[in-house]
Amino acid sequence: MSGASDPLSVGVLGYGFMGRAHANALARLPMFFPDAPQTERAVLVGRDGDAVETAASRLGFSATATDWREVVDEVDVFYNLGPNHVHADPSIAALQADTHVLCEKPLARTLGEAAAMRDAARDAGAVAGCGFNYRYVPAIRLAKRYVEDGRIGDVRQFRGQYLQDWLADPDSPWSWRLDEGLAGSGVLGDLGAHTIDLARFLVGDSAGAIERVSGHLRTFVEERPAPDGEGTRPVTVDDAYTAQAEFETGAVGTFEGSRYARGHENDHRIEIHGSAGSLSFSLERLNELRYAGADDRGYERILVTGEDDPYGEAWWPPGHTLGWEHAVVHENYEFLRSIAGDGAFRPSFADGYAVQRVLEAIERADERGEWVAVDEISGEGVAAGNREE
Amino acid sequence: MSGASDPLSVGVLGYGFMGRAHANALARLPMFFPDAPQTERAVLVGRDGDAVETAASRLGFSATATDWREVVDEVDVFYNLGPNHVHADPSIAALQADTHVLCEKPLARTLGEAAAMRDAARDAGAVAGCGFNYRYVPAIRLAKRYVEDGRIGDVRQFRGQYLQDWLADPDSPWSWRLDEGLAGSGVLGDLGAHTIDLARFLVGDSAGAIERVSGHLRTFVEERPAPDGEGTRPVTVDDAYTAQAEFETGAVGTFEGSRYARGHENDHRIEIHGSAGSLSFSLERLNELRYAGADDRGYERILVTGEDDPYGEAWWPPGHTLGWEHAVVHENYEFLRSIAGDGAFRPSFADGYAVQRVLEAIERADERGEWVAVDEISGEGVAAGNREE
Amino acid sequence: MSGASDPLSVGVLGYGFMGRAHANALARLPMFFPDAPQTERAVLVGRDGDAVETAASRLGFSATATDWREVVDEVDVFYNLGPNHVHADPSIAALQADTHVLCEKPLARTLGEAAAMRDAARDAGAVAGCGFNYRYVPAIRLAKRYVEDGRIGDVRQFRGQYLQDWLADPDSPWSWRLDEGLAGSGVLGDLGAHTIDLARFLVGDSAGAIERVSGHLRTFVEERPAPDGEGTRPVTVDDAYTAQAEFETGAVGTFEGSRYARGHENDHRIEIHGSAGSLSFSLERLNELRYAGADDRGYERILVTGEDDPYGEAWWPPGHTLGWEHAVVHENYEFLRSIAGDGAFRPSFADGYAVQRVLEAIERADERGEWVAVDEISGEGVAAGNREE
Amino acid sequence: MSGASDPLSVGVLGYGFMGRAHANALARLPMFFPDAPQTERAVLVGRDGDAVETAASRLGFSATATDWREVVDEVDVFYNLGPNHVHADPSIAALQADTHVLCEKPLARTLGEAAAMRDAARDAGAVAGCGFNYRYVPAIRLAKRYVEDGRIGDVRQFRGQYLQDWLADPDSPWSWRLDEGLAGSGVLGDLGAHTIDLARFLVGDSAGAIERVSGHLRTFVEERPAPDGEGTRPVTVDDAYTAQAEFETGAVGTFEGSRYARGHENDHRIEIHGSAGSLSFSLERLNELRYAGADDRGYERILVTGEDDPYGEAWWPPGHTLGWEHAVVHENYEFLRSIAGDGAFRPSFADGYAVQRVLEAIERADERGEWVAVDEISGEGVAAGNREE
Repeated sequence: MSGASDPLSVGVLGYGFMGRAHANALARLPMFFPDAPQTERAVLVGRDGDAVETAASRLGFSATATDWREVVDEVDVFYNLGPNHVHADPSIAALQADTHVLCEKPLARTLGEAAAMRDAARDAGAVAGCGFNYRYVPAIRLAKRYVEDGRIGDVRQFRGQYLQDWLADPDSPWSWRLDEGLAGSGVLGDLGAHTIDLARFLVGDSAGAIERVSGHLRTFVEERPAPDGEGTRPVTVDDAYTAQAEFETGAVGTFEGSRYARGHENDHRIEIHGSAGSLSFSLERLNELRYAGADDRGYERILVTGEDDPYGEAWWPPGHTLGWEHAVVHENYEFLRSIAGDGAFRPSFADGYAVQRVLEAIERADERGEWVAVDEISGEGVAAGNREE
Repeated sequence: MSGASDPLSVGVLGYGFMGRAHANALARLPMFFPDAPQTERAVLVGRDGDAVETAASRLGFSATATDWREVVDEVDVFYNLGPNHVHADPSIAALQADTHVLCEKPLARTLGEAAAMRDAARDAGAVAGCGFNYRYVPAIRLAKRYVEDGRIGDVRQFRGQYLQDWLADPDSPWSWRLDEGLAGSGVLGDLGAHTIDLARFLVGDSAGAIERVSGHLRTFVEERPAPDGEGTRPVTVDDAYTAQAEFETGAVGTFEGSRYARGHENDHRIEIHGSAGSLSFSLERLNELRYAGADDRGYERILVTGEDDPYGEAWWPPGHTLGWEHAVVHENYEFLRSIAGDGAFRPSFADGYAVQRVLEAIERADERGEWVAVDEISGEGVAAGNREE
Repeated sequence: MSGASDPLSVGVLGYGFMGRAHANALARLPMFFPDAPQTERAVLVGRDGDAVETAASRLGFSATATDWREVVDEVDVFYNLGPNHVHADPSIAALQADTHVLCEKPLARTLGEAAAMRDAARDAGAVAGCGFNYRYVPAIRLAKRYVEDGRIGDVRQFRGQYLQDWLADPDSPWSWRLDEGLAGSGVLGDLGAHTIDLARFLVGDSAGAIERVSGHLRTFVEERPAPDGEGTRPVTVDDAYTAQAEFETGAVGTFEGSRYARGHENDHRIEIHGSAGSLSFSLERLNELRYAGADDRGYERILVTGEDDPYGEAWWPPGHTLGWEHAVVHENYEFLRSIAGDGAFRPSFADGYAVQRVLEAIERADERGEWVAVDEISGEGVAAGNREE
Repeated sequence: MSGASDPLSVGVLGYGFMGRAHANALARLPMFFPDAPQTERAVLVGRDGDAVETAASRLGFSATATDWREVVDEVDVFYNLGPNHVHADPSIAALQADTHVLCEKPLARTLGEAAAMRDAARDAGAVAGCGFNYRYVPAIRLAKRYVEDGRIGDVRQFRGQYLQDWLADPDSPWSWRLDEGLAGSGVLGDLGAHTIDLARFLVGDSAGAIERVSGHLRTFVEERPAPDGEGTRPVTVDDAYTAQAEFETGAVGTFEGSRYARGHENDHRIEIHGSAGSLSFSLERLNELRYAGADDRGYERILVTGEDDPYGEAWWPPGHTLGWEHAVVHENYEFLRSIAGDGAFRPSFADGYAVQRVLEAIERADERGEWVAVDEISGEGVAAGNREE
């Protein structure tokens, strides 16, 4: 561990898409957020020694490792960006060493794992964050500000749809993402987790917790051509899900996710209706928020690039748009600041667990064909068993 | 009854919004659809004799009546545009006299009534149509054509939302539309009926029947200021509903309706995702259909005003848009042509009953907190009892 | 001529697109605008006796004629909907008989003709209107109201583009519309006339007259395949034009028209920027007006179907959209009311002349390669000569 | 000068908005474009020693200087990001030392200066680039590819509008940007330069050079409140401009720029119509390109984030949007690669000069009130005189 004035040494597990996104975020902070704690990209961890060497060189890491066990207690901060099945053990080990952890979403494969991770975070003298980066899109934060400022009044309805298109063709080949064992989850876990997190973030303080849900999971195409061209392989995750929700205040919600929505590549759409106004957002136009207030006749488009907008001052003059990656930069900024500060980073592991509880409730509701109360769902009893698998 | 070559005499019950819409439709047919059967606006029916006189004069009716009983067997065609609680008896009486009937939606207050109406239609030597006019919006018909032509492939998902805003303000006054006894239904019956009908129309032939549903009905504001300013009155209908659906083929659907959606005045949004393409429609832009096919990178906007588009030839040159009322003209055209022709008008009373069965299933699903199979729902047993109330 | 309480007898020259649009308008007024003067579709005029008989039957006219000379002094009102080269003589003859005239746009083939028509209108005891129907689109009238109410402040810029696509393909066949002698004008006269009229209507009271213009006319494809497939025929009208303008107050404008704009079927786009706000309109979405005021962060979409919106009360409940033809109904309503009232209908023949003067200035500016002052243009000297051709 | 395998040392003049944008670009290349030549942020130049020290520390420069003369022949590459009046001399000095130069746009204050810079570039053994970064927006490059691939056919029309809103309020205070001496240019030079460059880039190869132009420059508010609150100060640059253009092939164009367009913060809109298709782009939605081809019924929205899209492979998975700054990263990548490669970077100083010649022609056309041939405009004769001022 380093002294107070040294840069925070960061160990990162994973060097794919998310590894690049976070390495980029760390690299950009000094220039744009000079008050962020200084960091050192210390160790990049991956199982394939050669590949991780190459990636480390490109992403600016000083060293590499092939076993996370060697790393989690040697660094100040551990980024767990690996696949879902390696979320729990390394994160818990790091937290037990009081190493700060940022773990990608969904928090874990199972609710049991998630509960164990939440508990480890609670017991650790370290910050534990869950990587729901869309909370850090400026337009989403502005939406949150509008809700908090009463500009939509009492929240009545939340509608979240995360739509992608890459599986629409039934002849497109099988991939590991379609295997539950390898991918950990399908659309509900992958896309739905983001939607539930935004629902909690945006209206959770106003409408209260999600109390009960219904659910519907579907696999439209049960088997797909094997990638090697020989025969087919089974699809064991959901291709799409839909859900209904009721919040504490009686506000209602609907959630959907799909990989079959042609015309939508990566479209996370959020709509909120309240007594005094509505908000609308689409991830494919992430610089924009649309707002219809009580005195408006329709939605007004807000280009969320102003100086007073969330993170607006850090970047470019008004009207100069940001991209997807900037949300990750903001997320890193807040996470690191939280380490240096009060440690109260959100979304926390408790948030990650709470999201997962809703996902689990949706799945059980689908199985049972009935609404399920979220607080009936618990990861406690199942934790041990699940983690053994 | 008139001879074969005489114009069809039409009796119309109701002279409000829908009375005007249909009178307008009848008046416009000769100029734009010269092959439509000729009609005579014979009798306008309403309880208030003076008011109905005034309306008849404006809407071009030759005579008036204050009791529908005197009319239903005197005219060739009976338009039942009255409030929901007068749908059943006059429509059944007319059909029993072999008078053709066009009845506004939803078909009836209760499933029992709807079943009786469906049976009367089945037994009558007359055409019975249910007024789901959105089937006759050109863009909706083009969407149907796209589905039939295989341009969206296998239907995977249907999403229908009917959003209005006129109740968003909790202090807006009570009206008769918020009383179940007077209005017959709330958002589910009023808006949801349209959505279910379009789901059946657009994807019913491809994805099959709606087999089971979940449901969620909510009244956000339980009482509202009385219109006379003294005290409050209770709201006894739903302000919003959400539902999930599963079709025969395994396709999934979500339905929503709301009167709390600021920024949306009368916005019926339909989205369909299939293996080969997606379709998107919004009633507030009813001349437009958006389509994303398998070879497209995103939605293409189609202005549905071409000569080859549904009803395109009847009106103006390409690029000259139509309005809401034109759907009603088309509906009247097809209904009257069906009388002169094969009598196979759709949506029929059987369609109206089928929609109502889904609505009833959604309501029961809400009450029970579980999915309900639509074919478990039947209006048979309850018909008599319901009609007595 | 008829007595004061008799319906106004209307004679109409032309039974194509515009004939149908105006016959429809006349037919719809009693139901929707009961305070409009009553009219009788008395005589339909066309050169082909059989064709005009058929049209008259369909459009509801009592009689037909093949020579307008027999009609113009027999009716109360004369609608001149013929091609541009028969605008002047019949309209002038009618006005000389104190018959009210509504003449389609552009007012005339030449500025000389237009001047003669304007003078005839000035000297007649009758109302003379020019058919710039887009002034009667509710969203355009709401835009005007916004300008008048100071909601855009001082007008700085006007941008008008009328975009169509039907000539984009260089191999599409020649038609009479591409012959100057037959069509009278190309894009500038056909589309540009609408744009100039809206500029005058919307900002003329605030920014003053259009004082000077530049111009650019282009024929992209000089000859096209003859319709009969044998050889080619020359295109003698412009395919596209662009122009710049300066208003009295120093406000600036740009105008464009094109038949080569794929993706735009009939898209008249208007944008106005002022010190306090901007307005934006597209004819393909004619129920919508977009407004960005001084306190707004972007455009707000207004669905112009409210009760307080222009002509909103006459039609359907809020959120039920209108079509292109409704503008023609409103135009007829105001024109006929003006006959019964103060006679001050706008756009008048003087407006039609003023528009034509700007068009002429644009054409001369193109020829000379320099800006041309509009008040330097006059139809006086050339009137006689032109009319002789 | 460094050896072949050493990183290129970069000296940068200016540390405001553009300084930050380019420093960021240089910092990001190794991670995302590993084949880019390596660079060292060697010297940051600015007149205020303390400020430049602070900036250098934040932007990652090894050293600072207060006089560009000490720098231009000491570094391998010189970025001239200073205000317009310091574009010429330092750039020329650098080129005379065979130091590569990237100079921000517009190339110079005057055409004379621009000519001298172009000549210096021609004579130097170094690469000289002009910072029209919008050429490097992926959607703009995709548009170029569509034009080159014949997907719009023969170019008929180009429409470019650069709309901002920050001066709409006549009471907003005076700033140095409104003084010609300090700012060098107003809307035409600042915004119009971008539009002309994109016109040349996108359709210049197909439609040929811009042969002649008209022009209109306007200052709507002649004086504004002094920033210190005492009295007013004169505005000596244009607030808005409009222009018309004719290309070599006869294609036509319109250009506009404004700082008075409320509702548009930084909206560079480009529309191109050709015989086979149309393209549409807006900078405020820079991840999107809209295309309407000959077989399409309307525009299709393309989210330009695919692997095969320009620079798509370098960044994130499809559907993950980029921001404004990425264009600058791409620009730096190509500029530096060109240094290591064939030196043929575009936009070159010759491009910068060509743009300026069109701007000058627009200005003269405005003064003279007539169209001006671009090739009549030359910076040669005026160069010396202008540079003396």
